[in-house]
Amino acid sequence: MLKAPDHQVAGHRARDGKLGPLIDDSGRFYKPLQDSERGSREVAFYRDFSTNAEIPDCIRKFFPVFYGTEMAEASDGSGLCSHLILQDLVSGRCSPSVMDIKIGSRTWYPEASEDYIEKCLKKDRKSTSVSLGFRISGLQVFESKESGFWKPGKKQVSNFTPEDVRLVLRNFVSSNPSVDSKNPNCSLVHSVYGGSSGILAQLLDLKAWFENQTIYHFHSCSVLMFYEMEKLLEGRASVVEIKLVDFAHVVDGKGVIDHNFLGGLCSLIKFISDILDGSDESSAKACNLEPEKKLISTDNGHKQ
Amino acid sequence: MLKAPDHQVAGHRARDGKLGPLIDDSGRFYKPLQDSERGSREVAFYRDFSTNAEIPDCIRKFFPVFYGTEMAEASDGSGLCSHLILQDLVSGRCSPSVMDIKIGSRTWYPEASEDYIEKCLKKDRKSTSVSLGFRISGLQVFESKESGFWKPGKKQVSNFTPEDVRLVLRNFVSSNPSVDSKNPNCSLVHSVYGGSSGILAQLLDLKAWFENQTIYHFHSCSVLMFYEMEKLLEGRASVVEIKLVDFAHVVDGKGVIDHNFLGGLCSLIKFISDILDGSDESSAKACNLEPEKKLISTDNGHKQ
Repeated sequence: MLKAPDHQVAGHRARDGKLGPLIDDSGRFYKPLQDSERGSREVAFYRDFSTNAEIPDCIRKFFPVFYGTEMAEASDGSGLCSHLILQDLVSGRCSPSVMDIKIGSRTWYPEASEDYIEKCLKKDRKSTSVSLGFRISGLQVFESKESGFWKPGKKQVSNFTPEDVRLVLRNFVSSNPSVDSKNPNCSLVHSVYGGSSGILAQLLDLKAWFENQTIYHFHSCSVLMFYEMEKLLEGRASVVEIKLVDFAHVVDGKGVIDHNFLGGLCSLIKFISDILDGSDESSAKACNLEPEKKLISTDNGHKQ
Repeated sequence: MLKAPDHQVAGHRARDGKLGPLIDDSGRFYKPLQDSERGSREVAFYRDFSTNAEIPDCIRKFFPVFYGTEMAEASDGSGLCSHLILQDLVSGRCSPSVMDIKIGSRTWYPEASEDYIEKCLKKDRKSTSVSLGFRISGLQVFESKESGFWKPGKKQVSNFTPEDVRLVLRNFVSSNPSVDSKNPNCSLVHSVYGGSSGILAQLLDLKAWFENQTIYHFHSCSVLMFYEMEKLLEGRASVVEIKLVDFAHVVDGKGVIDHNFLGGLCSLIKFISDILDGSDESSAKACNLEPEKKLISTDNGHKQ
């Protein structure tokens, strides 16, 4: 009864005999616990979070529902293995446009091994994580029934520059998406990013929580943004959502806010606000910070 | 006429034949441009900032006034060298309590050399920068005319743990400061941190700017907080201030917010809010994120 999800845009895939998540037809998402520490850390997070009375409902809705763990046939044919059972976020969605954005300029954390830290740091520097405070991990944008989705490949996504990211965030709300055409029409920008229940409003609610919460630090965690273009065009509401996913590297906040996640989230918010304001193309303000070559000659009349 | 400043708490000192900043008796601060790239970068920042019409007055007041550059006798006796001429922030202050807090979990930036990045990263990990998003670089707290200042040594400051930082931020607003006594009285917390013109209010104004400004990225930059205890006790206003200092590593923001500075600033704001709320000691909320050891046994009835 289990099958590979249709609308996964990032992470390991349960295809070609590989280990990856599966879904059933009742709206559940089966995430295999491959590496024991990561897997068990993610289970620990869901257990703690799902029973933590301090999480307000307006924040809890941004997280997938957790149904426990369960043994199930692994997608790679290796037999039964333990799976996290979660809400399938796009279950029942019609041709959803989806983007996975890994938040934070730093995906590593002091408690991790030196090998892991080095690997993460390298990737953070190579991608836009260090420069922008977030990186796009994957996406698909629905174009039309005829042409289907625009879904750039893994390699292309991992090479996104800051300029690409700005363009892709515009493409995500366009009916003519493609990173090669530099003129996405942004036809859906107000219904997807704007309004009182749009993505910007939801990100701002999340930000307000992160300014205060000191329970968890989320490393390598993603914001998933998704919407259904066809339903939007029919004028239906509540089809634009954000969710947080991937909690294999959540650690105890120890009374300190998650400044790394918050900083990246604020940067994403600014990108989306700029697009909404239509000011994204003029936002790179001129400034002249090149070190001066001839300092001596600008001194006030003294001689060396 | 130039002499070493009395109330410097961090950075190079112009004492014992070393190169460091000097002050004159008209309220000017002479900062030597030692290393050519850093020095010229800082001059470039001050030149750009002082003429940038986009900086609102409510933000400009958080920066030292810039008077240009000038040749002056270096404090190490090496002859004339170029100095930045800035406002002496504590000129005319009576026994100021001062704290220098370097903001940001990351003091390096992609454009820097690999050697510099490695050196910074090591220090960021060793100090509280990575964990808290900021680190204390130095401080002095006025106790009384008889006992003078509490001023922990450089070595002690560089070894501050997150718990020390929380305690020191309480000591800073106490009339019985000392990191050894764990019971600072916080007698000045409301007049220094609180109120409509206190440090928290000023930090929040700064934060609002950082949520939007994409002109500069400030690396290794400090927030200086200072106040005059004696004047406060006399009930005088406007003696509590914050200023930003040290701009040798400011780079062009390229249309992106300074998420690294903003994250650290939000963390500092949360620490100070917690102290004002009196909730700092209970803020380390309980959570249980230790990876579970016995995952299999918690599965729902399936067997391997």
